[in-house]
Amino acid sequence: MPSQLKISYQGEPGAFSEQAAKAFFGNACRTIARETFHEIFEDVVRNTSAFAVVPIENSLHGSVHQNFDLLWKFPVVITGEIKLRIKMNLLALPGVKIKDVRAVFSHPQALGQCEKYLRSMKRITVNPFYDTAGAAKMIAAERRRDAAAIASLQAAEDYGLSVLRAGIESDHRNFTRFVIIGTKQIRPKRNAKTSLIFTTKNIPGALFKCLSVFALRNINLLKIESRPIIGAPWEYLFYLDIEGDAREKECANAFNHLQELTSYFKSLGSYETGTIVNPQ
Amino acid sequence: MPSQLKISYQGEPGAFSEQAAKAFFGNACRTIARETFHEIFEDVVRNTSAFAVVPIENSLHGSVHQNFDLLWKFPVVITGEIKLRIKMNLLALPGVKIKDVRAVFSHPQALGQCEKYLRSMKRITVNPFYDTAGAAKMIAAERRRDAAAIASLQAAEDYGLSVLRAGIESDHRNFTRFVIIGTKQIRPKRNAKTSLIFTTKNIPGALFKCLSVFALRNINLLKIESRPIIGAPWEYLFYLDIEGDAREKECANAFNHLQELTSYFKSLGSYETGTIVNPQ
Repeated sequence: MPSQLKISYQGEPGAFSEQAAKAFFGNACRTIARETFHEIFEDVVRNTSAFAVVPIENSLHGSVHQNFDLLWKFPVVITGEIKLRIKMNLLALPGVKIKDVRAVFSHPQALGQCEKYLRSMKRITVNPFYDTAGAAKMIAAERRRDAAAIASLQAAEDYGLSVLRAGIESDHRNFTRFVIIGTKQIRPKRNAKTSLIFTTKNIPGALFKCLSVFALRNINLLKIESRPIIGAPWEYLFYLDIEGDAREKECANAFNHLQELTSYFKSLGSYETGTIVNPQ
Repeated sequence: MPSQLKISYQGEPGAFSEQAAKAFFGNACRTIARETFHEIFEDVVRNTSAFAVVPIENSLHGSVHQNFDLLWKFPVVITGEIKLRIKMNLLALPGVKIKDVRAVFSHPQALGQCEKYLRSMKRITVNPFYDTAGAAKMIAAERRRDAAAIASLQAAEDYGLSVLRAGIESDHRNFTRFVIIGTKQIRPKRNAKTSLIFTTKNIPGALFKCLSVFALRNINLLKIESRPIIGAPWEYLFYLDIEGDAREKECANAFNHLQELTSYFKSLGSYETGTIVNPQ
């Protein structure tokens, strides 16, 4: 890969998404920080970045639903996956003690992952912020001695904050699964999985019938997610991850069968199942 | 019903949840404002409130996942449902113009429902806040002339703000579905639906087999939601809404059949399907 491969991510430098980008593409890649998820999808579609790193699911807090919506909206494919071990830390200006903290700032996902610890803190307010590393940056920039951020150790280093308490996530089996998005499929060499989106036809037992196309072929279902359809209250788009490569016969047959039962169908492509990595 | 029936809701007075409580129980009920969803579940379990009104799903932005987790954690049942027509409004101090607004505050759900409009606003920051009405209250209390809140017309009235722009949600078919939680089931008289939670056994085609117990009996599946299991990455709790009353024979048979296939099962009870109401 060219050494200056451009990879977009959402957040400030030090964000978990940036760590995932470095872990997947190596330190030589050039990471592009963006404020919103919408922008990193735009970067890929406009080809100003080769790929973007998109958090899709956390093992404690659940799916990042906004990114499911964007996978549907934008003409992108998934080209890879990585699972990052997430350690959340309470960060503050040097010299600040836990008892001084009256306000905690972080991304809602991070606040959700540390819910237990936050409930044990007395007399604090919990404040959603647009980004974990962004919260650390704000506390450093505004020299706030009454506040703390929840973010990565990298963010502590980047913004000169001290670690008041390390590993405050509610359970240590805490991983965030990222997908790598691009515009061209990359054929998986091993451990293939495939992601797809569909809406069911308005027939009885519709979802059951759609899942049957995989069950009848012994194709494993790894994940199912549903999202509302704008303008059609209480109807849903379904997102599936299945084991296997869409180019294999069984899988291709299942997809053909599925399209008999769906009113909308989009394959997000096949890619190699991600491994678990620790932040560097 | 006694005139001073106590109903807990999350948010500040003027919140959509309070409007749902008044619409469901009538204006004579006494609404109890709480900061967190956790507290309204506690109120019901400790019997300090008779019921709580819990937003569970919005037709534009999707499920309120935290409340699915709390339905699993707390020993409560669902006793009713209501769908509130949601109109989002940009509110500011009297005299403030749209071009003066540099920061918009609201609950992440409300920000998500107004995503299109927010993207059309130039040079603003979008700031998640713990509550829609709370954002309106903050702007009024701090006399901020550079900021606006997204909240209900009721909140504009309650906190003396002007409506800069009404109906800024991305699509007008915007409804929030609330469930009423209590400790004792109330037998539905008509249009029954039933909610349940389960985990699948570790067998091939597990979810497909679980859905078969309903499909084989022509019981309609209304909604499926999955949530991560803490400590078991990439395994899920499933939440289903189905048509019918758990006391009816077909439904009872399906539940018995389902328990052969699940490692965990909890019924949240049967209740009457909610109707759509407009805020008063």
